[in-house]
Amino acid sequence: MVFPQIPAFAGAPGVIRLVGHRGARGVLPENTLEGFEFALKTGVDLLELDVTATRDGVVVITHNHHLTRSMVRDANGNWLQGAEPKVSALSYAELLRYDVGGLDGASAYGRRFPDQAFLTGLRIPRLADLLALLQQPQHRGVHLLLEIKSDPDLLADTAARQALVEAVVSDVRAARMQPRTVLHSFDWDLLADCQRIAPEMPASYLTQLPENTDDAGEDSSKAVNPVAGCTVLDLPDRVAAARGRFWCPYYLDITPQSLARARELGLVTIVWTVNAPEDIERMIDLGVDAICSDYPGRVQRLLLTRGLHWRSD
Amino acid sequence: MVFPQIPAFAGAPGVIRLVGHRGARGVLPENTLEGFEFALKTGVDLLELDVTATRDGVVVITHNHHLTRSMVRDANGNWLQGAEPKVSALSYAELLRYDVGGLDGASAYGRRFPDQAFLTGLRIPRLADLLALLQQPQHRGVHLLLEIKSDPDLLADTAARQALVEAVVSDVRAARMQPRTVLHSFDWDLLADCQRIAPEMPASYLTQLPENTDDAGEDSSKAVNPVAGCTVLDLPDRVAAARGRFWCPYYLDITPQSLARARELGLVTIVWTVNAPEDIERMIDLGVDAICSDYPGRVQRLLLTRGLHWRSD
Repeated sequence: MVFPQIPAFAGAPGVIRLVGHRGARGVLPENTLEGFEFALKTGVDLLELDVTATRDGVVVITHNHHLTRSMVRDANGNWLQGAEPKVSALSYAELLRYDVGGLDGASAYGRRFPDQAFLTGLRIPRLADLLALLQQPQHRGVHLLLEIKSDPDLLADTAARQALVEAVVSDVRAARMQPRTVLHSFDWDLLADCQRIAPEMPASYLTQLPENTDDAGEDSSKAVNPVAGCTVLDLPDRVAAARGRFWCPYYLDITPQSLARARELGLVTIVWTVNAPEDIERMIDLGVDAICSDYPGRVQRLLLTRGLHWRSD
Repeated sequence: MVFPQIPAFAGAPGVIRLVGHRGARGVLPENTLEGFEFALKTGVDLLELDVTATRDGVVVITHNHHLTRSMVRDANGNWLQGAEPKVSALSYAELLRYDVGGLDGASAYGRRFPDQAFLTGLRIPRLADLLALLQQPQHRGVHLLLEIKSDPDLLADTAARQALVEAVVSDVRAARMQPRTVLHSFDWDLLADCQRIAPEMPASYLTQLPENTDDAGEDSSKAVNPVAGCTVLDLPDRVAAARGRFWCPYYLDITPQSLARARELGLVTIVWTVNAPEDIERMIDLGVDAICSDYPGRVQRLLLTRGLHWRSD
């Protein structure tokens, strides 16, 4: 199958792609329309985002399964107290009571993003809201790396898992955004469902070797990560065997040999989440297809300084 | 005279104000509408900007008197080659050929702002363009710290200097923005003209002691700075004697004693340009009225972490 998404994310001579991670998490609150709009205004045409579903089946853009104290305020503007409500236990209307416009600087998660602007009154968006934005003509070149968050509590609930994939695919199809969307997950079983339910969208396989983590203050991928026991050089073959078209390794895992193998297999390789200047430079030197970063301006600068660009147009 | 601008910029219990320097120079290209819009979207309601005039008398928002190689591209998208044209020698139509959407990472100036996004097709705006934006109802609480750049080549040309002040004041009055504008300069003679021509706007006196500088890669204030030979403790009295209402010292110059003296004299004290976290923290601890920064998100975070805010509404 020929996927138009592949050239959109694949590197090219003089081009290493730039993916805005959750919009531009270093600058603006993650997974908000405001963050995505900022990324778009600054010429970032590949957006990474995370989705899950509410109790009433609305696909929403948020990373953690629970509303998280360090980044969510209640209707009175206070950081969440007590138990953190699960997104899938709330209706979309209930979710709209919460403010996701900023981080608590006293939290470990907040300290990771010291420059992020602090806004008030921001809401968790629906996937449909972002898709509507991207249907505006000036955004016709924008593509999505749409991560489906697999609920560790529902690993055995086949029906619930399929319902989530179907809801996501239904939104994408309703917006006719399939040619501009890649389905992305740490959960390889879910990606098999994606390939079956929506064969028109390539599947993107996230990997992180257990010895490396960078997820202080947020949900870990460990629960659904099937690559324990692998070396990084095994991963491209594993992805190809699963009929994945994109391989998305953690940036501390990737090696020149594994990247070369991914290329032999025809995979698009996107590294995440690359934020420190020296790490961005190392990924550029390695020649990955794309870099997913919370600091897109920083990646732009380092690419340009080497005579490279993040877009081929 | 009662100036509504004074409470807008003055600190208050629990409040240290935040001024976006040239918009948000650490994030987006300086003195562009895109940069100002970003600052506004992130809740920054005090904007600093620089103006000068074109050959045909259009007041434009730009810092240096010459289009500068490190931040200006020509109509072909190349960094400026050869002599850097003077803004006052170009018509506004000619100025529109140049692109100010990004910094050259190979330059000393570019290296100062490694995270600034790189855009293409941005133009030097007219002051009138920004004033029109701020007349939108959602921006009615926004105030300007409008720096008039004094041309060192024209220090003796009284008519030209007055014409610049008159052109600026005319734009501000046409937009009825006088109650929301402070006229700000390093050139104290120009500020005397401002007070005479536009007594409805308070004058803001910039100072920088000659032993401290941070202007690598941009026009220096030295040529018009009248405070050589002063100590920092002399400056508030000098500003008050000149009938200034705002004192804007370089952040490395200010001391607790000089701030206390400014307060005794009823001056609003705004420090510039405070970017490093430890410097922002020191200014918060000192208790200045307002902090002017290229990184407004960073200042927001550090204020909130101390239980402070940058707005009183």
